[in-house]
Amino acid sequence: MNNSQHLSHSSGLNRERAEEVMKTQGLSALIATTPENIHYVIGSQLRASNWTMQIYAVLPADRSAKPCIVIPTNRLGVVAQFGITGVDIFAYSDFFVEGSIEGKPSTDDIDLFYSLLQTTVIHPGPVEALKAALKQLEIEYQPIGIDEMRIAPDILTRIKEEAPDRPVIPAYKLFREIRLVKTPFEIEQLRQAAQLNERIEQELIDLIAAGVHEKQLADHYRLAVMRAGGTPAMTAVGAGPRSALPLIENYFHTIETGDQIRFDLCLQLEGYWGDTGRTVVAGEPTAWMKKHFDAVKSGWETALETVRPGVKASEVFHAAVSRVQREGIPHYRRQHVGHAIGLELYDDITLSPGDQRILEPGMVLCVEVPYYELGAGGFQIEDTIVVTPDGYEFLTHMERKLFTK
Amino acid sequence: MNNSQHLSHSSGLNRERAEEVMKTQGLSALIATTPENIHYVIGSQLRASNWTMQIYAVLPADRSAKPCIVIPTNRLGVVAQFGITGVDIFAYSDFFVEGSIEGKPSTDDIDLFYSLLQTTVIHPGPVEALKAALKQLEIEYQPIGIDEMRIAPDILTRIKEEAPDRPVIPAYKLFREIRLVKTPFEIEQLRQAAQLNERIEQELIDLIAAGVHEKQLADHYRLAVMRAGGTPAMTAVGAGPRSALPLIENYFHTIETGDQIRFDLCLQLEGYWGDTGRTVVAGEPTAWMKKHFDAVKSGWETALETVRPGVKASEVFHAAVSRVQREGIPHYRRQHVGHAIGLELYDDITLSPGDQRILEPGMVLCVEVPYYELGAGGFQIEDTIVVTPDGYEFLTHMERKLFTK
Repeated sequence: MNNSQHLSHSSGLNRERAEEVMKTQGLSALIATTPENIHYVIGSQLRASNWTMQIYAVLPADRSAKPCIVIPTNRLGVVAQFGITGVDIFAYSDFFVEGSIEGKPSTDDIDLFYSLLQTTVIHPGPVEALKAALKQLEIEYQPIGIDEMRIAPDILTRIKEEAPDRPVIPAYKLFREIRLVKTPFEIEQLRQAAQLNERIEQELIDLIAAGVHEKQLADHYRLAVMRAGGTPAMTAVGAGPRSALPLIENYFHTIETGDQIRFDLCLQLEGYWGDTGRTVVAGEPTAWMKKHFDAVKSGWETALETVRPGVKASEVFHAAVSRVQREGIPHYRRQHVGHAIGLELYDDITLSPGDQRILEPGMVLCVEVPYYELGAGGFQIEDTIVVTPDGYEFLTHMERKLFTK
Repeated sequence: MNNSQHLSHSSGLNRERAEEVMKTQGLSALIATTPENIHYVIGSQLRASNWTMQIYAVLPADRSAKPCIVIPTNRLGVVAQFGITGVDIFAYSDFFVEGSIEGKPSTDDIDLFYSLLQTTVIHPGPVEALKAALKQLEIEYQPIGIDEMRIAPDILTRIKEEAPDRPVIPAYKLFREIRLVKTPFEIEQLRQAAQLNERIEQELIDLIAAGVHEKQLADHYRLAVMRAGGTPAMTAVGAGPRSALPLIENYFHTIETGDQIRFDLCLQLEGYWGDTGRTVVAGEPTAWMKKHFDAVKSGWETALETVRPGVKASEVFHAAVSRVQREGIPHYRRQHVGHAIGLELYDDITLSPGDQRILEPGMVLCVEVPYYELGAGGFQIEDTIVVTPDGYEFLTHMERKLFTK
């Protein structure tokens, strides 16, 4: 069987960090159930067609052991199409495909699918399939962590009953802890996502003119993201009074000369998120706009100057907010000035007063210091950075200014 | 405040059926946690930005009481943009927006957002917000059902501890039971989704020619769905040998003369799913293709002839499968010949041997009798119907034939 390049896949998995977290918790395996954590383990998302369908990825603490996946039999073809190899497969439930490919026209993914159909043992359900996976790993009665966010509670109960003395702890947060420090592969994926976002954001800026409707800009964004192979998500395009709305998912305003336009744009590219933002004025900015943009930008610069390994997330928050307050918005308040980004739009750290975690090299953060004033306008400047041993490096490159058109 | 038409929304909620289900179960309220069930209760989806964010919709059994939503404060603006009125709002956690709109340029959604910011009580977290909602409904200590699929387990535990004597049962399946019989509003939404799907499927058929890559067809589908305001999902476009792959999410084949092409296309439009399919031959169908398509189509016709109120889902399955076996594919096997569709791609009933539920007027079903033969080809014919008092009515209108190009 010849798996050509389009069938190869890569994973951002940091098994060393995963092993450490499992060691600290005394666990022999972590079981991913959410699409994001499954993606982390196997390098591809496998999506269910409804909430009852169960898909898991088992990550053993033993780094010499292969991860396993638990899937309905009908997902074998998807596994083949995405060339998900390097995992052991435990399938469950009936699915019928007939025929044979011997001596007939085929493709690499059909070769692989056919071979999987011949070799995969089909279990009656997800509980039995997971049990078989743990048995093969020889950890059937060892303590495990299960990502609790996307497993049907009745299935979780049955898994616990299978081995009542085996400790089972929730693992969603453990996966998030592992995913917090990105591998070079992940940093590259996040760079691609951020730069795609910026490229399209520049196209939106180019389109801005009096008479253009917010909806036209949002549609342009979404179609451009799709054309580039990504998936568009929250597309905050707010013009004039609507620039002061924090989250924007509906569009009502036609741009007029003098309007300020706030962008906060989110997409996914091969599972990894991009989230960047800028502010633009259609015409000449007023003194009020300049003053407030400058204040926000000062806070954002202070946030960046504060970012380096060893600093607490909360310190970045306090430095940024107090700077904005000093620079012209004395009443400035904010719940956070940024967040980790990765396979989730909001990975685990937020640059917020309650987050005392310490920044480390390899963490990827969106730094944003927005200001929203209803009846006046809103400002956004959001960039993506990776924490480095000396400070940080930008994954984004667009100019950081109050754009005018 | 003038809520113009673009802010209005409609709901497919069947409160009578919901009341019946709650009465049977002895419940005072159902709490939706998945986006689909929340959509069902309030007529709009409210999406969380990660798995820890909690959003609920409370549907009281008492039909004179308003539904309630539990949301993070930062979702108030989204509630305003989608004009979600007719619900009581219980917000939680900090979110800062400054300013006032008195006498300043505004829009309807900003008016509503501003008014919500003035009047909404902010609770410390989702547990407290939900407790306040149940208290206002005067059912704080009454039995409730909670959709168990999208609530963080630690939050569910805390909700149970708030009132240890109050019965709390899982409610995901109860919502699915309520949603199984569609309201006229929902049937219309599903008709729109199916017809959009068919319109674009016809465009794909028109594009078929030797030299066209599967990926071009898939991209055309996805962009056309987006342009029409929908969200594309599984886009099975398989040509030649790949027509035999059941689920297709990756594309490798360029169409050659004589290839058969199987489509199974899924989209969401305003929350409701479309899922239709056809088979096309690029050139002259072979005798083998005609024979197998005719067998599959006979089974599909038999499924439809069997559908009427009072019939079991399993009866439709057996009638269809045995017809295909008689008509030319004696080894034909299949796990189901269709499924309910609605706010989930797979709503609760499947036309399968294990499903003994009785069909009722108002159920909307996708009827499909596909055949997959690796090394040979695959066939699909999938339409959407609504069960009527006399039998069924098509929501789809495309010709049911083996298309040729």
